[in-house]
Amino acid sequence: MDGKNSNTNNADDPYSYTQNSEYQKELVDTAKDMVNKLIHEKLDIEDSSVNFPNTFRIADLGCSVGLNTFFAVQNIIEAIELKFKSKQQNPQIPEFHVFFNDLTSNDFNTLFRNLPPSTSRGYFAAGVPGSFHGRLFPDVSLHFVHCSSSLHWLSRVPEEVTNRDSIAWNKGRIHYTGPEKEVREAYSVQFRKDMEVFLTARALELVGGGLMVLIVSGVQDGVLPSETSIGMGFDVLGSCLEDMAKMGRVSQEKVDSFNLPFYYSSPKELKALIETNGYFDIVKLEKMATPMRHEIPNLQICTMHLRAIIRGLIEEHFGDEIIEELFDRHIKKLANSTFIFSKESRKEANFLVFLKRKVTD
Amino acid sequence: MDGKNSNTNNADDPYSYTQNSEYQKELVDTAKDMVNKLIHEKLDIEDSSVNFPNTFRIADLGCSVGLNTFFAVQNIIEAIELKFKSKQQNPQIPEFHVFFNDLTSNDFNTLFRNLPPSTSRGYFAAGVPGSFHGRLFPDVSLHFVHCSSSLHWLSRVPEEVTNRDSIAWNKGRIHYTGPEKEVREAYSVQFRKDMEVFLTARALELVGGGLMVLIVSGVQDGVLPSETSIGMGFDVLGSCLEDMAKMGRVSQEKVDSFNLPFYYSSPKELKALIETNGYFDIVKLEKMATPMRHEIPNLQICTMHLRAIIRGLIEEHFGDEIIEELFDRHIKKLANSTFIFSKESRKEANFLVFLKRKVTD
Repeated sequence: MDGKNSNTNNADDPYSYTQNSEYQKELVDTAKDMVNKLIHEKLDIEDSSVNFPNTFRIADLGCSVGLNTFFAVQNIIEAIELKFKSKQQNPQIPEFHVFFNDLTSNDFNTLFRNLPPSTSRGYFAAGVPGSFHGRLFPDVSLHFVHCSSSLHWLSRVPEEVTNRDSIAWNKGRIHYTGPEKEVREAYSVQFRKDMEVFLTARALELVGGGLMVLIVSGVQDGVLPSETSIGMGFDVLGSCLEDMAKMGRVSQEKVDSFNLPFYYSSPKELKALIETNGYFDIVKLEKMATPMRHEIPNLQICTMHLRAIIRGLIEEHFGDEIIEELFDRHIKKLANSTFIFSKESRKEANFLVFLKRKVTD
Repeated sequence: MDGKNSNTNNADDPYSYTQNSEYQKELVDTAKDMVNKLIHEKLDIEDSSVNFPNTFRIADLGCSVGLNTFFAVQNIIEAIELKFKSKQQNPQIPEFHVFFNDLTSNDFNTLFRNLPPSTSRGYFAAGVPGSFHGRLFPDVSLHFVHCSSSLHWLSRVPEEVTNRDSIAWNKGRIHYTGPEKEVREAYSVQFRKDMEVFLTARALELVGGGLMVLIVSGVQDGVLPSETSIGMGFDVLGSCLEDMAKMGRVSQEKVDSFNLPFYYSSPKELKALIETNGYFDIVKLEKMATPMRHEIPNLQICTMHLRAIIRGLIEEHFGDEIIEELFDRHIKKLANSTFIFSKESRKEANFLVFLKRKVTD
């Protein structure tokens, strides 16, 4: 879902998501071995006639325009095929029907053009427009759900944080990186609501015994967003907007009413939400190796990456005329804030969550 | 599929398919009562547990960008619901999953934006990119297929007609409107191959007892394309291209290598192809009332309609710089060829073909 609103149809555009998603690709690669292992251990193909019939349906939620979604799906299919081959003497490998989902504003034309050719990809493909914070598929129709680097997108910015009359008003910032507990809490409540809706929708759509892999962008337990490089980066962006408001380049009111719809949850919080929801067994919930950790952060790349992800949000709120100036300012300010990229600040984390739909009678 | 290649993302564009598809809309409306009646008579919901389980899957093939596809699908769903309500005491109405298919070059972004809101449409929606001259769905996964005003699109222009060394070379024309039998035969052979592929693919995808409605643009038995206003219109367009070649506005070679990938079949031919294929029972094959018959043809509208349909083909072959001049010339020539629109010339016809997948053991 990252960059879903980037409104760039051109995958060659240096600012496009396609050109700025190596981080997400590395996450998918990192998850691969664990996902394969868990599919091997946890996919019940014995009662295949009931829950896993001739067609095996896989959904990738928040797929963006490719290519990461195709790698992820390919990995999953290979692991499932392997499982069938290892468990059955005359393996009846099912046909695969893969559903690529993202918001209606996603560029599905580019996604479809990027699809591997039908002759070689080994699955039937479909695109599904709509929010995963709601139902997307019929009851009991999916066997596997994958959702990578997307669940930190909230369905909306919590109302209170842009309301001047609320104690949770987030004045002067665009994310919950300030000291006010109320702002953090408003974001946290929104995430809780969204996750409950997400998990319940998927629970109804998955067959009993169906599997779900979530790769969730979050933070370690006890880490505040203000302590992470991503939170600090948002603060720098927020201060650029404040500067532009002071200079009259953009209205103060517009800046005040802008907040980012992202929430970075902790493993403790995720675990509690999944258990409260109650439809899934947690097979695995663990921190993943951080992508690109070994690399010395490059300011240019960091800004391009951020731009690819949030450009759509900025355009929607401010119009597209401020984009160039805003990100020019951002990269200049970042250059004076190199502590953001110190090892100590890089406290964002990604979690692999492997769930199995409980079988109900 | 009409206008699928029009490459216009803007449904407000006066030249877009959306603004030029009243004819197709009227066809869908005309078919409505008959389709409802046949669904009532022919849909076997008694063995619903086997062939019609909780999810009822419908595909519209050659859907373009809406809105006609949504009308068609809505009609079908209402008829199916009615059938369930009339036959069951406590009707277990299934959930509907609707697949909108067109070529990868179709503007799915516009299609998805045009979709009725998920809260009110009463079905789950997905887009499927790819040619219906091949497999699009897993085995035995569809219950109903609809395909309107699309089957006259061939998968390709028959090779011989643009080959100077072939006796079927279609020199000086862009369609099989000339006296040469060989050209007509080459088109007819291509249609036969395409229909066989189409019918076999759908037969594998549909459940036993599954239904298929085709609205086919064709001609009455014994009518030559040169006798129809559509064929004459193509001839006028071809002569405009020849004029432009003579004036050096476009290369003669380009014009010689351009032919339209359309075939207008007759009911006799359709019946024979379906019977040879063998997978379907023909429930109904009948001529439909011709849309807009009562209206006095408007040259401007006729040209805009043609332009919406074939613009993509022209652009792909000649580039987009000739579009304006070509259609300007077309409308001027048409003004001198009003006999094209005489009642006697309007011999094109549309056929409603209602098929039922044979149940095999």
